[in-house]
Amino acid sequence: MSRYAAPLKDMRLALDVAAGIEDLTRIPQFSEATPDLVDAVLDEAGKLAAETMAPLNAVGDSQGAQWDNGVVRMPEGFKDAYDEYVNGGWNGLTFTTEHGGQGLPFALGLAVQETWASANMALSLCPLLNQGAVEALTHHGSEELKRLYLPKLISGEWAGTMNLTEPQAGSDVGALTTRAERAEDGTYRIKGQKIYITFGEHDLTGNIVHLVLARLSDAPEGTRGISCFLVPKFLPDENGQPGQRNDLRCAGLEHKLGIHASPTCTMQFGDNDACVGWLVGEENKGLRAMFTMMNHARICVGLQGVAIAERAYQQAVAFAQERVQSAEYGSRGPSVPIIQHALIRRKLMTMKATVEAMRALTYATGGAVDRAHAHPDADERAKAQGLADLLTPVVKAWCTDMGVELTSENIQIHGGMGFIEESGAPQHYRDARIAPIYEGTNGIQAMDLVGRKLAMDDGRHWKALFADIRDFAGAIAGDDTLGSIAEYLSDGVEALQHAAVWLAGNDLDEARATAAGASPFLTLFGTVAGGYYLALQAREAQRRLDAGTGDPVFLANKIATARFFAEQCLPPATALLGPITRGAELFYALEPDQFAA
Amino acid sequence: MSRYAAPLKDMRLALDVAAGIEDLTRIPQFSEATPDLVDAVLDEAGKLAAETMAPLNAVGDSQGAQWDNGVVRMPEGFKDAYDEYVNGGWNGLTFTTEHGGQGLPFALGLAVQETWASANMALSLCPLLNQGAVEALTHHGSEELKRLYLPKLISGEWAGTMNLTEPQAGSDVGALTTRAERAEDGTYRIKGQKIYITFGEHDLTGNIVHLVLARLSDAPEGTRGISCFLVPKFLPDENGQPGQRNDLRCAGLEHKLGIHASPTCTMQFGDNDACVGWLVGEENKGLRAMFTMMNHARICVGLQGVAIAERAYQQAVAFAQERVQSAEYGSRGPSVPIIQHALIRRKLMTMKATVEAMRALTYATGGAVDRAHAHPDADERAKAQGLADLLTPVVKAWCTDMGVELTSENIQIHGGMGFIEESGAPQHYRDARIAPIYEGTNGIQAMDLVGRKLAMDDGRHWKALFADIRDFAGAIAGDDTLGSIAEYLSDGVEALQHAAVWLAGNDLDEARATAAGASPFLTLFGTVAGGYYLALQAREAQRRLDAGTGDPVFLANKIATARFFAEQCLPPATALLGPITRGAELFYALEPDQFAA
Repeated sequence: MSRYAAPLKDMRLALDVAAGIEDLTRIPQFSEATPDLVDAVLDEAGKLAAETMAPLNAVGDSQGAQWDNGVVRMPEGFKDAYDEYVNGGWNGLTFTTEHGGQGLPFALGLAVQETWASANMALSLCPLLNQGAVEALTHHGSEELKRLYLPKLISGEWAGTMNLTEPQAGSDVGALTTRAERAEDGTYRIKGQKIYITFGEHDLTGNIVHLVLARLSDAPEGTRGISCFLVPKFLPDENGQPGQRNDLRCAGLEHKLGIHASPTCTMQFGDNDACVGWLVGEENKGLRAMFTMMNHARICVGLQGVAIAERAYQQAVAFAQERVQSAEYGSRGPSVPIIQHALIRRKLMTMKATVEAMRALTYATGGAVDRAHAHPDADERAKAQGLADLLTPVVKAWCTDMGVELTSENIQIHGGMGFIEESGAPQHYRDARIAPIYEGTNGIQAMDLVGRKLAMDDGRHWKALFADIRDFAGAIAGDDTLGSIAEYLSDGVEALQHAAVWLAGNDLDEARATAAGASPFLTLFGTVAGGYYLALQAREAQRRLDAGTGDPVFLANKIATARFFAEQCLPPATALLGPITRGAELFYALEPDQFAA
Repeated sequence: MSRYAAPLKDMRLALDVAAGIEDLTRIPQFSEATPDLVDAVLDEAGKLAAETMAPLNAVGDSQGAQWDNGVVRMPEGFKDAYDEYVNGGWNGLTFTTEHGGQGLPFALGLAVQETWASANMALSLCPLLNQGAVEALTHHGSEELKRLYLPKLISGEWAGTMNLTEPQAGSDVGALTTRAERAEDGTYRIKGQKIYITFGEHDLTGNIVHLVLARLSDAPEGTRGISCFLVPKFLPDENGQPGQRNDLRCAGLEHKLGIHASPTCTMQFGDNDACVGWLVGEENKGLRAMFTMMNHARICVGLQGVAIAERAYQQAVAFAQERVQSAEYGSRGPSVPIIQHALIRRKLMTMKATVEAMRALTYATGGAVDRAHAHPDADERAKAQGLADLLTPVVKAWCTDMGVELTSENIQIHGGMGFIEESGAPQHYRDARIAPIYEGTNGIQAMDLVGRKLAMDDGRHWKALFADIRDFAGAIAGDDTLGSIAEYLSDGVEALQHAAVWLAGNDLDEARATAAGASPFLTLFGTVAGGYYLALQAREAQRRLDAGTGDPVFLANKIATARFFAEQCLPPATALLGPITRGAELFYALEPDQFAA
């Protein structure tokens, strides 16, 4: 069992420096996000997460969501916790005020969501999927659909889901075969099976609103023939209340490695040819709605990497402070808490530095999303959108890869106890393992980065970011405290620049070489960008220390942490330049049937 | 569910080149290990592993070992499989012929054990622990104890265990408090609790022979006051058959992340003050017996990393060959099996190259153990012992770290299916996670390497190994096919040499700096040494290709694989030189109570 306390100081610094929340409040739409409000929101979210959600995390793991003849029962306490969350008004925090949301910055929403995901990753998936549905409806739904569904989805009274995957259509969404037929009343009839549907069925809300990708019979093949439909579990009656049951059901739950309390459903639509759906957006343009759903969801899944690593880090620290074992190496003194051993310090500092770099990178991306949506200046919006687009796959993949790695370190710090389920350490490790997979595997993210994002706007956005990093490194070079960061960050961004130029310069007939370098390029990108946003915080910490404001211990530790990241974590990533640019020859030296033993 | 086939060709090449099995057969003790015999043994072991043990792997995971009032029942089929293993004469393969063993090389035994561990890691732990007990008894037991116990332990009719850990004494074995009192008849009375005892109780064998570390009441404190006792579950009667029940019991099993079919027992000794034990070796010299038990066990746990990664690799290949998804990047062609995607190729080639490097390194260590025990020349024995001692912690830690990483890659290759327990991918990932922990955590291994092993014999052994690697790299430099390996291997061994010189040169007052660099030093060591033994195989493959002997596809693929490892896996490890030698200042920048949020 592990406790959780929201890392409020670090969240606040990341919002200040990486997300630029003070700048955001100068945007009219976010003028209410004053420093006091931000503190109050973080504080209250941290309490709900720590007191209500975190204690249910182990319960959820051991009980799991239970399926019985189409009905899914959530573990004990989950309904009450969800109700508390809804009644606190948390679900609408960042959604449009037009339909009952509070319109606060997405960056702040990320900090709040981080607390839910740290406390109880499985439960936090319900609002996460709902968020995707709200985004898709907000941007692509008819006024009628918005009026009927958005208020309840935004309040959290109803939950939304995303129905994409089919057995033969995972990463290749264009291969889906779920059918939609036009009905005479302007609605559609949906028929098909979807798998891996997160919170496809549960007992937390009065209705469940499925957004389902399907194909009209006269649609073109592939991704150009996909439409998006809103398919509610209960058809709303004349008062907008859950009425007649729609022809859809949950045929079963998956038996998974982790996030046991998150029901992963097989969904059957239209077994009786009576599953009613409404078109969202235009026919055959469903991919646009899907990308709207997935884009923010990808950032939020990256955030899960941050969150689960934070939870594991807190558990590792608590254990290392308590567990007494052996004298320090080279000492004949008494046994000490293992946090005193350099081996354990390496692990804890690596966890701390990496989590804080991940958080900074993720919140920075959130800030870019906010500016892209709401900045009054069109150029600023375009720049911010470019940065958000560029960083989204990096956040998703790098943070979730690190989530796996750091939850594994927590197990290792626990020694034998780390392998025992009751310690709680295995659950974080098991839960973390889904995040590199869903919402587009990390491989898909890497291909998105080298394929689409490097080429976007002639590479303007990555060039701008790398120039910012170089300028920053130049500005702190030679500084007594921050100088060593400059050295490693310069090497890192140099490697990143070389790799990006090489990848972007590959012709289409070198597509294999590009794809071969994609994954380590994303790792290099994440490490350098994360190190950069962390170092920005270190400079701010230095400024505050010089000015005598803020908590001096926290600020001094931030500088040490950023230096540790630069000195210990950047060099192996920087060395990926060679592997990235080596080409694909050896990748294809073996025939497909020659890999087997 | 995943199938398994023993990778016989690669095992054989690793035995030939890395372990030098042909040289071993020139040692009188091993003269029977002819090439034909080796092939026959591997072939038969592979069959037993694939046909009998592998199909039980998922059964063992889902049923687990079951405790009921002190009795432990193994999952369905395990007893039959174990009997088949014993009746086949497998258990005595490498043990002394004096008590019924076959006296074959340990290196060959490793190849055979690898098949068991790949097929069914949980079941393979029973013989593994037994092996430790046999080693300890063989080297430290009285003639009487040997005569009574060794034949049955060597045949596998009885099983042996290692009882070290107590709640307050994990890595710090000197903190143990289990008591031993001298009885008038020359035996001892044991009293205390041990935890995490692998196969401490089960229904596979007629008796279980516990080797228990305990402390006499007049013993010195710490590790100098530990004695080793043989404590059988049933006291042998006058015919050497299991007689009266000894005063010990299994008080419960742990609920673990993985290896569910391996009963991890809490053992109670002497609840009724009547637990009879016999001294093994001398009083207060129990640590020597423990090190005898653990040394080979450490190599064998490293081998588990190889084995579980091999199993995961095979599953990943099979899935990637079958699963059709999307066209190749940059192509407008049809969807292809995902093994055709460069992203997946990177993962598969990384898995293949790393597993083969791990296997080569592990078998090389096995060959060194054999020469150390049996070579007629004393100088050769000493050199071999030095190499074995040096490589043992590297094998244990590097291979098990990689085992975790590569089983995680298998999950990722599976996409959504990788997170579903029925696919079998999660089990390998869960099972693999114990290996970096038990038999001395990987942190303990890293400290053993930088603390004891670098200093041993004035560093003669690491200097000799690094010189061999440099010489080899020099010899293949400029070679058309192998030249690129030389480049990366030279850089790697240069970094390794610098790091070792720096670590070995640290004074005792720089102990924190040494400990701070220990873990990445071990990673660098493992990667370079693994890459070296893999490259030796590539050179041999080239020779055989030139000579027109052997399977040309296998040999050409071996060269491609070794090149892939050099080009893709060595550079990030080489870049660890900086982090290793950076010192411990930042590790201790935070006070212990400043890590928490």
